[in-house]
Amino acid sequence: MLTAEGCRQRRARLWAAFEEPPDWILLSEPRHLMYFANYSANPFIFRSQNASALLVLGPDETAVLVADNMLEKFAAQAHVSDVVAPTWYDGKGAAPERQAVLVEAALDTMQTRRGSRIGFDEAVPASVSLRLSETRPNLSATVVGPVARRLMRSKDADEIALLRRSMLAIEAGFAAAREHVHPGMTELQAYRVVQDAATGAAGEPVLVYGDLVSGPRTLEKGGPPSTRTIEAGDLFLLDYSVVIHGYRGDFANTWVIDSPATMRQREVAGVCLDAMAAAEALLKPDAPARSIDAAVRQVFERHGVLEHFLHHTGHGVGLGHPDPPYLTRDSRDALLAGDVLTIEPGLYIDDVGGMRFERNYLVTEDGFELLSHHQLGLDT
Amino acid sequence: MLTAEGCRQRRARLWAAFEEPPDWILLSEPRHLMYFANYSANPFIFRSQNASALLVLGPDETAVLVADNMLEKFAAQAHVSDVVAPTWYDGKGAAPERQAVLVEAALDTMQTRRGSRIGFDEAVPASVSLRLSETRPNLSATVVGPVARRLMRSKDADEIALLRRSMLAIEAGFAAAREHVHPGMTELQAYRVVQDAATGAAGEPVLVYGDLVSGPRTLEKGGPPSTRTIEAGDLFLLDYSVVIHGYRGDFANTWVIDSPATMRQREVAGVCLDAMAAAEALLKPDAPARSIDAAVRQVFERHGVLEHFLHHTGHGVGLGHPDPPYLTRDSRDALLAGDVLTIEPGLYIDDVGGMRFERNYLVTEDGFELLSHHQLGLDT
Repeated sequence: MLTAEGCRQRRARLWAAFEEPPDWILLSEPRHLMYFANYSANPFIFRSQNASALLVLGPDETAVLVADNMLEKFAAQAHVSDVVAPTWYDGKGAAPERQAVLVEAALDTMQTRRGSRIGFDEAVPASVSLRLSETRPNLSATVVGPVARRLMRSKDADEIALLRRSMLAIEAGFAAAREHVHPGMTELQAYRVVQDAATGAAGEPVLVYGDLVSGPRTLEKGGPPSTRTIEAGDLFLLDYSVVIHGYRGDFANTWVIDSPATMRQREVAGVCLDAMAAAEALLKPDAPARSIDAAVRQVFERHGVLEHFLHHTGHGVGLGHPDPPYLTRDSRDALLAGDVLTIEPGLYIDDVGGMRFERNYLVTEDGFELLSHHQLGLDT
Repeated sequence: MLTAEGCRQRRARLWAAFEEPPDWILLSEPRHLMYFANYSANPFIFRSQNASALLVLGPDETAVLVADNMLEKFAAQAHVSDVVAPTWYDGKGAAPERQAVLVEAALDTMQTRRGSRIGFDEAVPASVSLRLSETRPNLSATVVGPVARRLMRSKDADEIALLRRSMLAIEAGFAAAREHVHPGMTELQAYRVVQDAATGAAGEPVLVYGDLVSGPRTLEKGGPPSTRTIEAGDLFLLDYSVVIHGYRGDFANTWVIDSPATMRQREVAGVCLDAMAAAEALLKPDAPARSIDAAVRQVFERHGVLEHFLHHTGHGVGLGHPDPPYLTRDSRDALLAGDVLTIEPGLYIDDVGGMRFERNYLVTEDGFELLSHHQLGLDT
């Protein structure tokens, strides 16, 4: 969970980020509700299905959460100054359209709040924005997503704590997969091993999603688990996230199932790990993202395999996927202290197979901290 | 997956449902994208995180799906006349705000489409609705959610096929829980048993969510699995859904862990099952929803336990939760052929424990078809 003080500071930073601040800011994207208010409607609870909520922010530390009566357990954990909880369903009559209840309550909440300069995120219900524009003819609308997005780059301590929880769960899934994925299992069965271990380590139901491919499918770089049966000697590529209150680490490894790797596979993996080390060496504030990508490409080029590197070098990690900064050839991003990011060099070569290795990092004032601690490399 | 013909018919029904149809309809709620276009961004695939899409419908069978380049695998399965796929992230540069790309592409798509009467659902991005209202000064906006909601009551064959898939997965989870949930396990471990079996039966990663409570927690009616350790003689209440392409069955049972039920528990369970039978006997088109609720209450009243029935009798099942019709005391809903619904009588009595039993039904022209086939009752 994010802290009250963290949410308060993030809201203060949001207001400070505008040269001309709006009078009010309305937010409805799940990642914004979490980031600014610790509101997260867990998708694993019946009453949260098909629900959305809205946060009204004012520059005087006003933070009003509008969330219907079936969301009260989530609303109780939000760090806000006030909760508006209209009744959507009382179990005695019939429930109206759920979104309509949110819209009316949001408009009621705004009614006594004057001012025509309104900031929105794109998930604010269409009729909230339209009806505000009808009743405030001078409405000046600002889309706050890009501003929030910049703030969300540098992670706070409470965010890093949640990311660490996600990463511990991912590590547990990797350890279980190393131990239990064997020839004769389908990819889906392997996913179930990972999902089960990650859920256990998370200590609550969580979303476990990512790439799980084996054998020839590794040449496709990724994809969801299929019903393909894993064979001895297959490469097994696992790259996944565990979502805890919206936050998700994201790291990968590739290994050989129940067989030693070939000499050529070892060479290729070694080149990937050299590329990762070259990228890691550059991690510090102000480093151009493209220089990190370039470091990976230089290693691959030196070994004559650059054409087999089919994707980016990495990206930011947090409440979305893939988040900034983008570690790509032409990126104009530069690293910031507080960036949490991933570096994921991979090579996909016919007759060898596809492999990818990936770690997560926190950029610190003078370098980085390694956040992921799973076993890297082809050997089990 | 929903069929092309099913989607086409549903779009035709949507247009026919308006007395004065709008010129265009813009939809962005996930359940609408599935229902009208078979578009479903699987949350278990990396590239779908933090993504949304938009469907532009015209009365001439136009159905344009706007979904960024990272969503192409989902867009390829949509039953639409055209796909607009703006580049959000190409892996070579840095990605802009993802929602901004959708907004621009949606506005571009609308630019050549004249007409100022626009239907929206509430998930259409706020700036799409605002900017359309700026450029079309006579904009007349209709919220289409309530209209779509009525249509979604009567399920089509392709929807029922998806619901059956969900229910088979739920049944597999129940069978596994009956076999493997034992004293000494935590509720979370029991959830993992259910999640794993349901995932295996679904044949793909799926969302497994609901109530899982044991022992004294059954008196709370529900809640997510906790780290409480299950003991011999505990009541175990499981009520859950498996989401497959947005559709979810929802059924429950309660049993006693590793011990025979007490006489009083058997009596109470028998009353619940009698109440369920009384409700089932009324299932047919035009039946008032409140008469079904009343049938349950009458059985409880006759046995002097009505005060321990703490919730509704049931509700519709489909793309949301809880959906109409609402089987409650004051409901004005009446059943329709094609309704898929649940009946879930329960009693929560101190010194006895909480228990709930629940089945899913399809309302047919002359009665109902039972859709759920799990073992009901306290005995394992």
